[in-house]
Amino acid sequence: MDTLQVGPWLEAVTWNEQGLVPVIAQEVGSKDILMMAWMNRDALLATLRLGEAVYWTRSRQKLWHKGEESGHTQKVKEIRLDCDGDTILLLVEQKDGIACHTGEHSCFFQQWDSASATWVDKSKPKKS
Amino acid sequence: MDTLQVGPWLEAVTWNEQGLVPVIAQEVGSKDILMMAWMNRDALLATLRLGEAVYWTRSRQKLWHKGEESGHTQKVKEIRLDCDGDTILLLVEQKDGIACHTGEHSCFFQQWDSASATWVDKSKPKKS
Repeated sequence: MDTLQVGPWLEAVTWNEQGLVPVIAQEVGSKDILMMAWMNRDALLATLRLGEAVYWTRSRQKLWHKGEESGHTQKVKEIRLDCDGDTILLLVEQKDGIACHTGEHSCFFQQWDSASATWVDKSKPKKS
Repeated sequence: MDTLQVGPWLEAVTWNEQGLVPVIAQEVGSKDILMMAWMNRDALLATLRLGEAVYWTRSRQKLWHKGEESGHTQKVKEIRLDCDGDTILLLVEQKDGIACHTGEHSCFFQQWDSASATWVDKSKPKKS
């Protein structure tokens, strides 16, 4: 995989005007959706070569090997592309089961409550 | 739900510079990821009021009640927002089990094959 070269496969992806594509990370087994992030061409190439998720951080404008600081890396088991090529789905093994920078398993811990018309925080209680 | 009004909850979402947010649709039960689409404020409001997924189509620049032509509507069972508010997750019941305009269950039917360095079409055989 480390010898993978740029090729037509890379242009099968519909990169947006910023050269990015949204990427959904789903956990293998549980099928939980862990997070959504972005990749540019270099990030996708790095992900395929490394076998671990490498994203492009729009806020810091650089490649981001997920878990490089936290240790919460994502081993990529499968990669899928949608019908019009403009979204990528990664099936990953999430190291330590923690994908979110808040320490949560998944970033999607705010749940809509129609009765109160609010987003309810469903994250686990934090240690004080 | 049809009386739901615009409120602070709507600005808990981090709308991008086009006033849009990416939305992942995941099937309740199977937990399959069906598709990714976009919403603007009106689409989210319409989704909450109707109880079915209403997206914003960027190509046609209009609200799109998913399934309005195909009949493949998505009944919304749960809505989640991620940690930084910039992605929405819908848990839906997919009418007829078909989310993709190609007739596939899920839009993510192209699978990366590292041996051949190609995206392999994993859709079901089409009738000729």
